[in-house]
Order: sequence, then C-alpha cells, then structure tokens
Amino acid sequence: MDRVTAVDPLRTAEIIAVGSELLGATRLDTNSLFLSGRLASLGIELRAKSVVGDDRGMLAVVFSQALARADLVLLTGGLGPTDDDVTREVVAGVLGLPFTEDPAIVATIERRFARRRMRMPENNRRQAQVPRGALVLDNPNGTAPGLYIAHDAKVVVLLPGPPRELQPMMARLCESLLGARAGGERSYTTSAFVTGRSESHVEEAIQPIYSRWYDATPPIQTTILAAPGQIEIHLTLRSADPGAARARLDEARDAIAAALGDAVFSTDGRFLEEVVGDLLKARGLTMAAAESCTGGLLLSRVTDVPGSSAYVRGGVVAYSNDLKTAFVDVPADVIAQQGAVSEPVASAMASGARTRLGADIGVGITGIAGPDGGTPEKPVGTVAIAVAGPGGAEQVRTFSFPGGRAQVKYQSAQAALDMVRRGILNGDW
Amino acid sequence: MDRVTAVDPLRTAEIIAVGSELLGATRLDTNSLFLSGRLASLGIELRAKSVVGDDRGMLAVVFSQALARADLVLLTGGLGPTDDDVTREVVAGVLGLPFTEDPAIVATIERRFARRRMRMPENNRRQAQVPRGALVLDNPNGTAPGLYIAHDAKVVVLLPGPPRELQPMMARLCESLLGARAGGERSYTTSAFVTGRSESHVEEAIQPIYSRWYDATPPIQTTILAAPGQIEIHLTLRSADPGAARARLDEARDAIAAALGDAVFSTDGRFLEEVVGDLLKARGLTMAAAESCTGGLLLSRVTDVPGSSAYVRGGVVAYSNDLKTAFVDVPADVIAQQGAVSEPVASAMASGARTRLGADIGVGITGIAGPDGGTPEKPVGTVAIAVAGPGGAEQVRTFSFPGGRAQVKYQSAQAALDMVRRGILNGDW
Repeated sequence: MDRVTAVDPLRTAEIIAVGSELLGATRLDTNSLFLSGRLASLGIELRAKSVVGDDRGMLAVVFSQALARADLVLLTGGLGPTDDDVTREVVAGVLGLPFTEDPAIVATIERRFARRRMRMPENNRRQAQVPRGALVLDNPNGTAPGLYIAHDAKVVVLLPGPPRELQPMMARLCESLLGARAGGERSYTTSAFVTGRSESHVEEAIQPIYSRWYDATPPIQTTILAAPGQIEIHLTLRSADPGAARARLDEARDAIAAALGDAVFSTDGRFLEEVVGDLLKARGLTMAAAESCTGGLLLSRVTDVPGSSAYVRGGVVAYSNDLKTAFVDVPADVIAQQGAVSEPVASAMASGARTRLGADIGVGITGIAGPDGGTPEKPVGTVAIAVAGPGGAEQVRTFSFPGGRAQVKYQSAQAALDMVRRGILNGDW
Repeated sequence: MDRVTAVDPLRTAEIIAVGSELLGATRLDTNSLFLSGRLASLGIELRAKSVVGDDRGMLAVVFSQALARADLVLLTGGLGPTDDDVTREVVAGVLGLPFTEDPAIVATIERRFARRRMRMPENNRRQAQVPRGALVLDNPNGTAPGLYIAHDAKVVVLLPGPPRELQPMMARLCESLLGARAGGERSYTTSAFVTGRSESHVEEAIQPIYSRWYDATPPIQTTILAAPGQIEIHLTLRSADPGAARARLDEARDAIAAALGDAVFSTDGRFLEEVVGDLLKARGLTMAAAESCTGGLLLSRVTDVPGSSAYVRGGVVAYSNDLKTAFVDVPADVIAQQGAVSEPVASAMASGARTRLGADIGVGITGIAGPDGGTPEKPVGTVAIAVAGPGGAEQVRTFSFPGGRAQVKYQSAQAALDMVRRGILNGDW
C-alpha cells in the first residue's frame, strides 16, 4: 500500500442503503449490522443510517446531507446493471466527478458470464462506469465492483448490496484503505453464546457481574441479545492498547462463562453446528440422524459447515411411520402403542440411525411442528429427541417449544445439537 | 371524529427510529416494516427512513431535514423516562413548542405502577411532558404515551419503540387521524417470481413492456429484485379506484408473465416450495428425495410448508457413497465408473428414492458444494440433479452454480424444485 499522507483520521460515519425494496413492508437493510461492527472495530463512530429508494433526487439530497455531517459515508446497493440502479450516478453527480468506462471491468464481467456459458447483456456495461479518481474495488463474488472515493478530507465508499459480495469487500477495505485512515483507538469485542436458557435467566445470572464494569476505566459495554435458538452476550471495549484490551475482555468473558457454566457453547462466535462439528472431528466420531418433524433441517445445518463430510454419514427424513420402520428399524408396535411422537420412538430412531447408517452417534427427532396435528396431551411444539452412542449410551428428552412451525423446527435441531455436544463433553460417547 | 378541515392530503412520509442500540452490530429497527405496510395501505409513500442514536444534536438535524422533505414524519422510540430518551424534547425544540406536564398522564402512569404494587419513579414524570397543541395517544401496553402533532400542513407522530406498544397505537391512528388526512388514493401491488434466469436477462426481456408504463396514467412502478434463488418483479400502482387498479395490475402482471413464459413460477407471492407443494397436492402426487450435497436442505424447505406431510414421503441424506447404494440402490459400479457427482448417479438416486420410499416422484441431487472437493473437470458448484416419475419418466441436468457453499446448496434445492414443477406442468409425471 502507498504511504498515507497525514490527514485527520476518520472519526464518524453514516451508512445509506439504497433500494426501494428496503422501504417496503418485508425487507430490512441487514448489511448495516455487519458494517457497524467493522466500523466499531476501527474506532469509527456510526452516527446515523438511512434507507432511500431507487430515486435519484432523494438519494442526492440524503447523500449530500450525510456527507456534510460525517467523515465517511458508506453507500450499499444500487450498483446493479439496470436503470433503477442509481447509486454510482448520483454519487458522481453530487461530488461533481465525470465518468469513464473501465475496459478492465467490462472484461471481468464478460468473463463471469462466459464461465456460465452466457453472453454479457449490454446493460451490464453500466457497472463499468467509474467516476474520475475513484479506486475500483474488485468483486470476486458478483458483477458489480465497489468504489472508494477520497474527496477532500472525506471518504465515500460504494458497496454492492448482496451480503456475500459486500462483506469480503468491506473486510479487505478495513485491512487496507479504511484501516489506514482510522484513528488510534479501536473497539474490541468478544462474545459468549448460550442455548437452553431464557434471556431473563441469562440476564439474572450475569447482571451482578457486568454491572461492575459500567464505571471501570475504560468501561465494558454488555449487550444481551435473543437470537433464534440462542442467547448472545456481546462485550465491547474501546482502547488504544490492543493487548490490554484483549486481556481485559478475555477476563470479563471468562467471568460470564463461569457464571453460566456449560450452557455456554461458544466464546468465539462459532455457531452450534460448528462447535459440534469441531468436537466430532477432534474425537474422530461420526454422526447420522433420523428426522421426522425437522424434515432434514438438522442435517442441512450440520452440512452447512465446510468439511462436514468428514464426520457426517448421512440421515433419513422419515415423515411417514412406515419409513421409520423400513429405514431405521423402529418397531411398528412401538409406534402403535406409544404414538409416533414419543420417547421410545425417538430412541429407536436414534439407535436405528446409528446402526443402519454406520455412525458412532445417532440422533432421532420426532415431534409436532404445527400448525396442525396437536392434541391436548401432545400440543404443537411437543418434540421428543434422543441421542444414541456406542455401547448403549443414550439420552432422551421431551421438549415443549413455543412459536410457529419454523421456530419449532429450528429449536428442535438446536436442542438435538446441544444434546450431542453435552454428551461428548461428558464423555457419554 | 371531528369534521376534517380541507388541507392537502399527506402524500409522503419518512420514518426516524431513535436509539443508540439500533446503530450497533446486533439490532435492527424492525418497526419500520410494520409502519411501511400501514403507510402503503393509506397510499402514503414512504420516501426514506433513518436511524439515529440517543443524541440530541444529531436527532435535531435529521428530524429537521426529514420534516422539510416529507408531509408526515413518524419517530419511533426514545419516549422512555430516562435521560437518554430524547425524542419528545428534540421534536418540541425543532417545532418551537413549549412543554406542559399533563396531570392525566401522570395519574395514568401512577396507576400502572400501583397495579404492580410499585410507586412511580420520579423520572417517569418526563413521560407526562406534552408539547403545546399535541394530541396524547393512549398506550394501554406501556407507560410512554404517543404524540400526534399537526404542524402547519405537516404531521409529526411520536410512537413508543416496543412493537407491542407501537403497533396497536399506529393501527388506531390509521383508522382515525392519519386515515382522515390521507388522500383518496391508495397503493396496490402485485408480483411475479422467476427462477433459472439472471437479473439482467429478466430485465432485458421485460424492459420493453414496463417502459411503456412509465408515462401511463397512473404510472405503474416496476422493481426488479435479485433474491436468493429467484428474481422478483414487483409492480406498484397508486389509484383512487380499487377495482380499476386491480384490473390494470392484473393485466400488467399477465403481460410480464407472458414475456417470461414458464420461468415465472408464482404471481401471488408464494415461494417455490409452496408452489410445488400445491401442485403435488392438486394432482394427488407424493415426493421423496435422495440428497447428497444439499444435505437435507431440499426436504427441509419442502417441509417448511404447513400440511406438507400430505405429499412428502421422506428422504435420504446420503453423504457417503455406500449409503447411496444401501439406501437408494445406486449401483456401486456406476459410482466407481462415473464418479459420485454425475448424471447417472443423480438418476439412480432419483429412481431409488422413488421406489425405496414409495413415492410418485423421486429427486436425486449430487454435487460439489465446496469450498473443497472441486476438480478441473468438476469444479465447486457442479451439481447433477435428476427427477424421476412414474413409468420411467425422467429429467436429468448438470448445473454450474456460482457462490459459496450456502449459495450452491440453496440454488441446487431451488433448481430441483423447479424441475419438479416444470415436469408436473408438462404432464411428465
């Protein structure tokens, strides 16, 4: 990277998300969460964020006002090839920068289409229009390149809307251009993820600990967040000394983790399927599953993890009773006597998955995801989960999950993964 | 309701969400989705939305600018009793309205606390401060009342942040004060969802059609949106005549659908798994799947639809080759000769799933989701998908999907569902 000339560091930022769909009743700008975290890690304060539609006049006004207030303006979306992708054009207009077509970008986009045996539509040329003086940010995951524009003492960054294109681009910017323009103080964060406890129970357990940090120098900020299937505790600290900041945060996180015990499954941001995958890999164990009400969600989540083929044998989605019998040997009379949603059936599914698929650990899930199928004795949300290991080791539990069909499915998969995790840690299998 | 004096109707709106927690990396302003839907139903166009922290100076600037641009400004949050609840004070300051304490509000808050056998903390008096001329909006679900302020030709509304307090308050406002101030015109929308085409190809196909609508009276607004696995076309129209609006939108949507042919899978907002489910149900067909690289995602999506147990037999997640042979009868020599990722293996998985699980339609998916496992001949993203129906009917295709592991999984499931859909519509099975 070139030597950076001495200019004031970037202290404040605003984000503008562009897209009429983000003003409707169904879609939120979620990119700003990621960007906010990255800005915080550079010690740049996010002062406001806005959403505007694909509307040249409105975007020009909102962008001008943000630029007047903040050192750094990040714009996301509206970089596509169509006529309603207005961000490039409006930003160049407000900054008074003329456009030129960059032949290297045209060639890159043409190659992307050629790889998929398609020709580049003519309107994709719009994505190769570059305002004078702008740095083009390579986009390996899509056709729209990003743009970095240093303008007087300020910086304007244009990022593509799709998260998988935006995130790596922003990550690289933070390590290079933006990192070099940030000041000396940075934000540091750590987290602890918990499952199987409610938000209020977590709050009650850790409030006496984190309340001591309010008036510490520097203070540690604690945020408790209820996410699907897990409670997240985020700790944040601002400091100019990376080593001291890391040490204090580690100590704080360990105090939180000690108070919550084995309900904490991750202190490094890994999700439960990754934690379980890493445990299986470390112990050289394989797993298989027989799923009924989760319909394949458990295995789909487990196989979202790269490299999971090393420890996942496979599974069976046995929606109908005869398949439970045919594929994982659940005795038909157990289903008839106990009902398909019962601990004996979950048990038989777990051990059948284990033996029939040749895995060390078998999981069985059977329940009522709703909205139909509930009874007074077994209402919607009733789910029996069993985990079977070598030598007859077994855990089986019945849960009552709140929420709709999607929530019941997700919580069931989460609870099954947590039973596998706890069993491995306890040495049960 | 009092007779409404003749003022211009409210045509445009902006939303400002107040709260430093909404600028962090974990929490989004979700209230704006609800408010956006309500505004649309009144025919009021949401032109922008913003988030600002609990910062008097910043809120004053952002609020002034929004008020200059829009007929209606909705502010959410920052109405609590503490010092960092700044919304009331800043709005009154910008509008130049003095405060008075409303004894009726104090009495209401005191009663709420008394019901919980608590005394009202002194700082809750802040919530009884009312700018002169404001209407107080009762909050049966919390201590913070809302405020409705008619200011010159404009309207400013302050709503509490918690959704269960905000939503009923906004619903009542739409039926009364805001409804009366909205014009006779309402917004109407429809959509068409497409899969298997790129955003630019869709744009190219329909641009000649929708460009004619720009200058029509009233104009139809077209938005093209790339969502995971599908391209969405949204059409919006403002009109004072519901019947005429519906008829014009239906005609416009049919023109779009005709141009795109059977790439359009839904013109009523249903997702592909719902469309396929409805087709299976209507024809009395059942389905089963043998999944490798999708790891259960296809069946998990299909079983996200309530009532899917009527047409889903189940499936097998066969990550390892021996399970493909043991559970869905893929001949071991075909795997050895053609490779696990090949059309013959996908075919055998589809017909094996069909026969072994006793379904009318079998799906087989085998591919390389990445990031590892790619070869020069079969790079990451190569996926073979087959669908088998009664009487030996079969479709098999090989795809090259872009993106990371999650994208390859999602697009594979989407392509498989689309092959099932097209086959049903063509009468193949």
